[in-house]
Amino acid sequence: MTTQKLTMKKFLNDPNDIAAELLEGYTLAYANKVSLMSEKIVVRANPKPEDKVALVTLGGAGHEPALSGFVGEGMLDASVVGDIFAAPGAPKLLEALRAFNRDAGVLLVVLNHAGDVMSANMAMELAKREGLNVRMLLTHEDISAGLDTPDEDRRGLAGCVPLYKVAGAAAEAGKSLDEVIEIAERFNKQMATLAVAMTGATHPQNGQAISELPDDEMEIGMGQHGEAGGGRTKILSADETAEKMIEPLVQSVDAKSGDQTMLIINGVGATTLMEMNLVFRKAYRLLEAKGIDVVSGMIDEILTVQEMAGFQMILCKLDADHIPLMKAPCDTPYWTVR
Amino acid sequence: MTTQKLTMKKFLNDPNDIAAELLEGYTLAYANKVSLMSEKIVVRANPKPEDKVALVTLGGAGHEPALSGFVGEGMLDASVVGDIFAAPGAPKLLEALRAFNRDAGVLLVVLNHAGDVMSANMAMELAKREGLNVRMLLTHEDISAGLDTPDEDRRGLAGCVPLYKVAGAAAEAGKSLDEVIEIAERFNKQMATLAVAMTGATHPQNGQAISELPDDEMEIGMGQHGEAGGGRTKILSADETAEKMIEPLVQSVDAKSGDQTMLIINGVGATTLMEMNLVFRKAYRLLEAKGIDVVSGMIDEILTVQEMAGFQMILCKLDADHIPLMKAPCDTPYWTVR
Repeated sequence: MTTQKLTMKKFLNDPNDIAAELLEGYTLAYANKVSLMSEKIVVRANPKPEDKVALVTLGGAGHEPALSGFVGEGMLDASVVGDIFAAPGAPKLLEALRAFNRDAGVLLVVLNHAGDVMSANMAMELAKREGLNVRMLLTHEDISAGLDTPDEDRRGLAGCVPLYKVAGAAAEAGKSLDEVIEIAERFNKQMATLAVAMTGATHPQNGQAISELPDDEMEIGMGQHGEAGGGRTKILSADETAEKMIEPLVQSVDAKSGDQTMLIINGVGATTLMEMNLVFRKAYRLLEAKGIDVVSGMIDEILTVQEMAGFQMILCKLDADHIPLMKAPCDTPYWTVR
Repeated sequence: MTTQKLTMKKFLNDPNDIAAELLEGYTLAYANKVSLMSEKIVVRANPKPEDKVALVTLGGAGHEPALSGFVGEGMLDASVVGDIFAAPGAPKLLEALRAFNRDAGVLLVVLNHAGDVMSANMAMELAKREGLNVRMLLTHEDISAGLDTPDEDRRGLAGCVPLYKVAGAAAEAGKSLDEVIEIAERFNKQMATLAVAMTGATHPQNGQAISELPDDEMEIGMGQHGEAGGGRTKILSADETAEKMIEPLVQSVDAKSGDQTMLIINGVGATTLMEMNLVFRKAYRLLEAKGIDVVSGMIDEILTVQEMAGFQMILCKLDADHIPLMKAPCDTPYWTVR
């Protein structure tokens, strides 16, 4: 155990306190934007009057800045945080749903992972019994299991973050719960994500390897917690990797010449922005060659998997509703638009 | 050579094209904010009329998002980029100084590293001969060599980024070149940075290790390119590390009870935001216990060193001029304030 801790090479205190301590540090650093409503529930520091749809999400810690990094004006109202890589319990989630219940309604955004879905379903059941005005949306944009995989078997990856942006902007603009859901579901359906990993990572609580990869291999389709996706290959160049990933993404969202799209390269940990810029460049040029327009681009770490080297490529076909929502102002610690 | 490339585990194409390709990707992703004036000179996509002081900087690539990530309204007007970890040549810098020369003047911000300083001095000499209205400011806030080290022997670390913010906001507000320099120099003198590394990194062009550290050790005082700082210790906890770093920083900037400060934890690569949040938390609490107020906080990757695990802690004593400048609006790809 001691050896494991030593070889982990992370800046930690008691492994059991990581989630609580990181949220304390986070809300101290960005006190002008976020605060803790209660333990492990992050809310806006300056909430507006309750005349808009509230956007709530849940998920394990260890993926920073996701999910709590996107609480703030124009995006999330609340993020309910679990332990490292573990969903928060249903009672904790219910506490947040109660606090944000309102006439305009609450939209609960859930990433498709077993633990998150179990807590969400349980909390939704209890919320309904209490007569809370809550509805749920499941993100499931990972295409690593194949293009014909049913939605319920697709994992939710970093695509939740731009979805918060679009749904949050719609809510901020005063759209009804039905309208916000309709806009967000359309975005959800028009989006696809594919991940690639080059190195594994260590679980910060037990020092165990989350996944391992041989020195000369990479894996396309790696999940958010390092789950194998099946697509191991020898290491490819940035251009080759981009090409291998953009093709199934284009096919999945059925993007065609003249379409307008959002393209995000999300770094999951140790892969540098330098490399991600190379990958973005090639993906953009490949889309351009097909006549597909990238109107919204981002290269950043929005949802990470500890110190794993790799990235997720997210492609979404935007329609006339989505483009102004992506460009609308927002003010969160890790995504600000003027 | 082939083996080195394979074990590097980076997404690259031809190593000689990295800088050019990454700038292409970057300016495609953020075309609404930045563009290439010529090869390796990044400028604002929508420059304002030339009635303000222009802020120009220079530095090697491989530290993304620095330096070019901070070109945009309220921060830099231009970033002149070199090859990986290598300063751009004086002729390239002179090209930018000529392009931004104006009645209001140009402020050239240079990080204290031998190559950058050599190019900058040469370009300044040529600029003066041509009668350009340019002045230079050197950042040198690294305290790893000891508190009594003369300024010229202190390296410029990630503190250049908040300095761009302060100087950029002053320039945007229409301050004169003298005023911008006076405000920025005061910020520069009141700032101190200390770095710590847990793992080494690989040079992306030749696959060589930039630095190496035994499995159970960390090093305080590590430079921006992995230069040893001398302070090797067994791995410490997040709290112990924060304590060991905040004390000399407080001493260096002579922060006292009642002072208002900026505290930034800058991740250099593989260290997670999760860990950086823990470190920020403890550093904040230690400052709080001394009666020192953190009025501006940030936990992010603003200047990186490839996939090295570690971070830089930056503390700056803010005065009445600096606080509103830190909070002033800006709009760059990697630092936006509404």
